[in-house]
Amino acid sequence: MINNDICLDAKSIHKLSSGGLSSKTLKEQIDDDLEFLLQLWHSQGLQITKQHGSFYFATKFISVEDAEFCIVDIETNGSKIEKHQIIEIAAVKVKNGEIVDSYESLVYCNEINPHITEITGITAEDTKDAPNLKRVMYDFKVFLGDAVFIAHDVKFDYKFISQSMQKVGLAPLLNRNLCSLSLAERTIESYRYALSYLNEIFSLNPSATHHRAMSDVLTTYELFKLSLTNLDETVETVEDLIKFTKEAKRLKRPKFDPLLKESQE
Amino acid sequence: MINNDICLDAKSIHKLSSGGLSSKTLKEQIDDDLEFLLQLWHSQGLQITKQHGSFYFATKFISVEDAEFCIVDIETNGSKIEKHQIIEIAAVKVKNGEIVDSYESLVYCNEINPHITEITGITAEDTKDAPNLKRVMYDFKVFLGDAVFIAHDVKFDYKFISQSMQKVGLAPLLNRNLCSLSLAERTIESYRYALSYLNEIFSLNPSATHHRAMSDVLTTYELFKLSLTNLDETVETVEDLIKFTKEAKRLKRPKFDPLLKESQE
Repeated sequence: MINNDICLDAKSIHKLSSGGLSSKTLKEQIDDDLEFLLQLWHSQGLQITKQHGSFYFATKFISVEDAEFCIVDIETNGSKIEKHQIIEIAAVKVKNGEIVDSYESLVYCNEINPHITEITGITAEDTKDAPNLKRVMYDFKVFLGDAVFIAHDVKFDYKFISQSMQKVGLAPLLNRNLCSLSLAERTIESYRYALSYLNEIFSLNPSATHHRAMSDVLTTYELFKLSLTNLDETVETVEDLIKFTKEAKRLKRPKFDPLLKESQE
Repeated sequence: MINNDICLDAKSIHKLSSGGLSSKTLKEQIDDDLEFLLQLWHSQGLQITKQHGSFYFATKFISVEDAEFCIVDIETNGSKIEKHQIIEIAAVKVKNGEIVDSYESLVYCNEINPHITEITGITAEDTKDAPNLKRVMYDFKVFLGDAVFIAHDVKFDYKFISQSMQKVGLAPLLNRNLCSLSLAERTIESYRYALSYLNEIFSLNPSATHHRAMSDVLTTYELFKLSLTNLDETVETVEDLIKFTKEAKRLKRPKFDPLLKESQE
């Protein structure tokens, strides 16, 4: 495995988000100069701060209201990074529930198979004047900064983007990240949690064009806001929220699919 | 240690430059998809090719004449990456003994101590309209590509640049590299091998302004050409040259410093 993780064991990573990690332990695990390493990690989207002699993710001290979240969606011409590429990316930056900035771009691609065009509506012809992957990844990296990366089923988007960055010579991402699907499972009762399904049930984004990047980002944004209204009150900081998203109990699923019921009636 | 090496053991790295590495061994050492990994490494300046079922550095099959070398020099405001930065960089691309392209830039720096200004002649004021480190590293990365990185005492420049790239969010360098000082020790008889000394003895670059990046690059270029004229004839490919530079016997040093003798006479 190349470059994908910061070189700390799981226990230390846990400590950075909770009880703090001592200088001694941090220094034991790295052989680079510490200051330099913290700079590198920051350049990869991860800010680590020192408080009373211990190190923490900066997000441990940032409230959910003050944090900068970056909600992201990509369309790709297939799911395998070694064969496929991003063909569209969109993102909004969210602070205190408001969209404060946005970024979107198609990506030049010389071949998109008909199945993908059917899902996304994007043809290779549509991308012929779009910037190439390198240009888009460099621009998106500047946009993302060290914001908390959010996507619906975040693993796919995060990994695909991080690996795409590496493909063009950038370092992999280390941004803290949060899955809007996992958060929804713990804050919103639903029979299913696919974005299109949640959109239909909760009318999140009435003008949605599902499987276009910015449309899905805006749906996810509405979903994220809805999730936040139903949060456990013990969740104060970003790290509380990440922990809640992973560890809180999932809500009970209704016995029947309300959408299916309607269509059967 | 983060990101600085490709994840292969020393034996495998040796094999990539000599007898080739089998798919099986390469796959055993990595858990990523191989095609993707080769793409990543290429994005970091290292091209690996497959021949008859084994993997090799592409430079094993490229003759010294056909290879693209990038001769590089940096000036910094100190030697420690965690405190200091590049303040000037220059490079020329050399193919078959000819300069085919060049790149140089000052780098914006808000403080340069008087000692450094004395050595380089560069003041913070001189850099006030220069692009910042991020801009320069992105541009230099595009210039460098997968050329063989050459510098006089290559370790310092290579490591400082690779770490500077990481500071601004780029992946570390994996380019093959070659030390013009080590090569000179094996091809040119001299009492000392400092660039300014060699310049004086061999009149490499008569108009040299030592400790300005492009001037030192041009001196190194002349030195490199002189070294190549004295090569062992068994050296044909780039990998032969790298091996020769590291492993051939150093030439015997004259008993007296001719420069010192002159000044004493």
